[in-house]
Amino acid sequence: MNTIDGGVTTPVGFKATGVHSGVKYRSLDLGMVYSEVPANAFVGYTSNNVKAAPVQVMMKQSSPLLSAVVINSGNANALTGRRGIEDAMAMQSAAAAELGLKPEQVGIMSTGLIGRFMDMHKVRYGISRAAKELDSGREADAKMAEAIMTTDTMKKEFAVSVRLGDGTLVYIAALAKGSGMIAPHLRVLHGTTLSIITTDAKLSPAFAKKWQEILDDTMNMVSVDGDQSTNDTSILMANGMSKSGVADEDPEFVDALSYLMTKIAKAIAIDGEGATKLIEVDVSGAKTKDEARTVVRTVINSPLVKSAIFGSDPNYGRIMMAIGNSGAEFNLEEMRLTIKGGDMEVPILDGGAPVFQEERSVEVVRMAMDNKEVTIIVDLAAGDETAVGWGCDLTYDYVRINAEYAT
Amino acid sequence: MNTIDGGVTTPVGFKATGVHSGVKYRSLDLGMVYSEVPANAFVGYTSNNVKAAPVQVMMKQSSPLLSAVVINSGNANALTGRRGIEDAMAMQSAAAAELGLKPEQVGIMSTGLIGRFMDMHKVRYGISRAAKELDSGREADAKMAEAIMTTDTMKKEFAVSVRLGDGTLVYIAALAKGSGMIAPHLRVLHGTTLSIITTDAKLSPAFAKKWQEILDDTMNMVSVDGDQSTNDTSILMANGMSKSGVADEDPEFVDALSYLMTKIAKAIAIDGEGATKLIEVDVSGAKTKDEARTVVRTVINSPLVKSAIFGSDPNYGRIMMAIGNSGAEFNLEEMRLTIKGGDMEVPILDGGAPVFQEERSVEVVRMAMDNKEVTIIVDLAAGDETAVGWGCDLTYDYVRINAEYAT
Repeated sequence: MNTIDGGVTTPVGFKATGVHSGVKYRSLDLGMVYSEVPANAFVGYTSNNVKAAPVQVMMKQSSPLLSAVVINSGNANALTGRRGIEDAMAMQSAAAAELGLKPEQVGIMSTGLIGRFMDMHKVRYGISRAAKELDSGREADAKMAEAIMTTDTMKKEFAVSVRLGDGTLVYIAALAKGSGMIAPHLRVLHGTTLSIITTDAKLSPAFAKKWQEILDDTMNMVSVDGDQSTNDTSILMANGMSKSGVADEDPEFVDALSYLMTKIAKAIAIDGEGATKLIEVDVSGAKTKDEARTVVRTVINSPLVKSAIFGSDPNYGRIMMAIGNSGAEFNLEEMRLTIKGGDMEVPILDGGAPVFQEERSVEVVRMAMDNKEVTIIVDLAAGDETAVGWGCDLTYDYVRINAEYAT
Repeated sequence: MNTIDGGVTTPVGFKATGVHSGVKYRSLDLGMVYSEVPANAFVGYTSNNVKAAPVQVMMKQSSPLLSAVVINSGNANALTGRRGIEDAMAMQSAAAAELGLKPEQVGIMSTGLIGRFMDMHKVRYGISRAAKELDSGREADAKMAEAIMTTDTMKKEFAVSVRLGDGTLVYIAALAKGSGMIAPHLRVLHGTTLSIITTDAKLSPAFAKKWQEILDDTMNMVSVDGDQSTNDTSILMANGMSKSGVADEDPEFVDALSYLMTKIAKAIAIDGEGATKLIEVDVSGAKTKDEARTVVRTVINSPLVKSAIFGSDPNYGRIMMAIGNSGAEFNLEEMRLTIKGGDMEVPILDGGAPVFQEERSVEVVRMAMDNKEVTIIVDLAAGDETAVGWGCDLTYDYVRINAEYAT
């Protein structure tokens, strides 16, 4: 596997663009990805019970083949009732008409404000213009990436080339947006992180199970604020134009896809609203996989842990408080807690009692926390299961951004 | 029932005080409550699996009779291993020796930093001094109330007198502390909210069940940050000195106690760390009681909802996002959402679609949110169960307080 400078149009047969439809005041706000041949599509949707209109429309369709995906930002088309559903379907039909496709061959995603109707004049104009401007290359990638951003401050785009077992060279590219309302629990077949992954490898419909596993270990282990969006959607499009054999079980392919999804998951956490630090939580020694994941989520969502790390406040008792609240089993006599930052790896807890007692030595913990990436390593000493997840610190800017979002 | 100006020593036979032991730099940091005769005690403890030493010690004791309670602030004696347990027991023994009691007749609570050993020289000095200064009256109440505060900015003390069915006049007083790490799930017989409730009414041990019900509807429905403390404890002491009959089933008594616990729960939410607004969530139409409570908690803990209310940002879609994440059943076609603030009661959602569409009318929502108390009223239209809970907004000051707590 080689990491390369690439985007959604790097795999063979994909085109894309981003345009300004007018839903947002100035920036690009509507993106389109197109595959020259229908691609096997694997879609993960939000498990929030309040699902946005585009999610509802996509879930009703059975077509596992997608030729295009349209994404708008600025309006989530969520909580918009029957009219929202009609608008989502109109988005699909408009793109299908422009591209000579059936509506069900067009994937749709929306992100932005909840509870406002879409301005369909603008959206239709944007779709028409995007269909004409589809192109491949880094400029097209960049327009697409910009068009789907909301409060994102950086582009989340990664690509690799992989030599499969059968000798074929395939490309995989992943693009995501997501900064706030981030705690996805994507369920395949049936996300407001939006992500689109393109590849020219060939995948069979059976790959859905593996896709769910990868999502569970990557996108579903990111949390910026514990608030799962109504719109989360992740679409993997595999158009097979590399002429590879079916890559479902190819370990190089699976590793490369997992690598890309981990990169995207971490990028979403780093770019969490107002974030100044990436927090990684590594849990081992859990009795079950579910408990390992629950401990990661409880620690990474704790406002007290997040704000302590923001201030490099060595208040590590809060981490234990969060672990205790997770409900997971642990063996207090043997459990270990370590905080890692930069070159420093500081043991905090060993056998139920803190390693540090004096104020002076606590200073070491502060130094470890005073890094752009802080890793919390927990061994529950109760079993063999592990989990890893990512989040970010809770800062003044998170409050500012979210106290003023709609205005 | 009459609300009165009173405190923990208002019920007959109770004394109290607060002293400066030196655990904290300046303020009073050790409080003691004493009953002239042993009181039937009903204790609720944190359900965090990481329990502080005083909680562990209290839970091992079977004595349902308490004559005194000692509370220190500044150090939580949590995550302190075997030495912490020994210190907690020493606290109990020291108080027992000073007051001529058995150690198991002394309740203990601690609040403050997690993960530091207690300075027992200071604690022993404080206990000895407190035992000598026990007194009744408003000055003694005030000292006790001050001694248990941490980041609290206001005293949480309420009292009532109640005429029971048998004609006896009894008094009930409730005192609490709690500002951060607040999401108690207190379990009786087996929140860091600490609370102590004194009454001269007579209660039988069977009252424990009713006490759990009252806690579930009051203290256990408060959340400042969703982080449950390692130290939460709530002690109700009933010494029977009013000479009343058993008041377990007396509706006036139960109503008065519920009233006091609700007052305390709301006071803790209002005084949440950094809070500028009280948020109340009223859920009706839930399929089960558990679902009703889960919806309250999910809405009240959502950082996006909390920061929107801080900024009076009419981003009500976030409330629906949180309801969708709760997992509770709702009937989208019939559900209703209303935001109330001051004199304004603004319908937001009716039958799955938002009532407001134009930016101008959304201004009304902002005006309702721009109040010290904001109530979110949700009818899930899926059943008959209800729940009410309290929280507060997420502000710059919450971040500041918790980024700098240990330092």
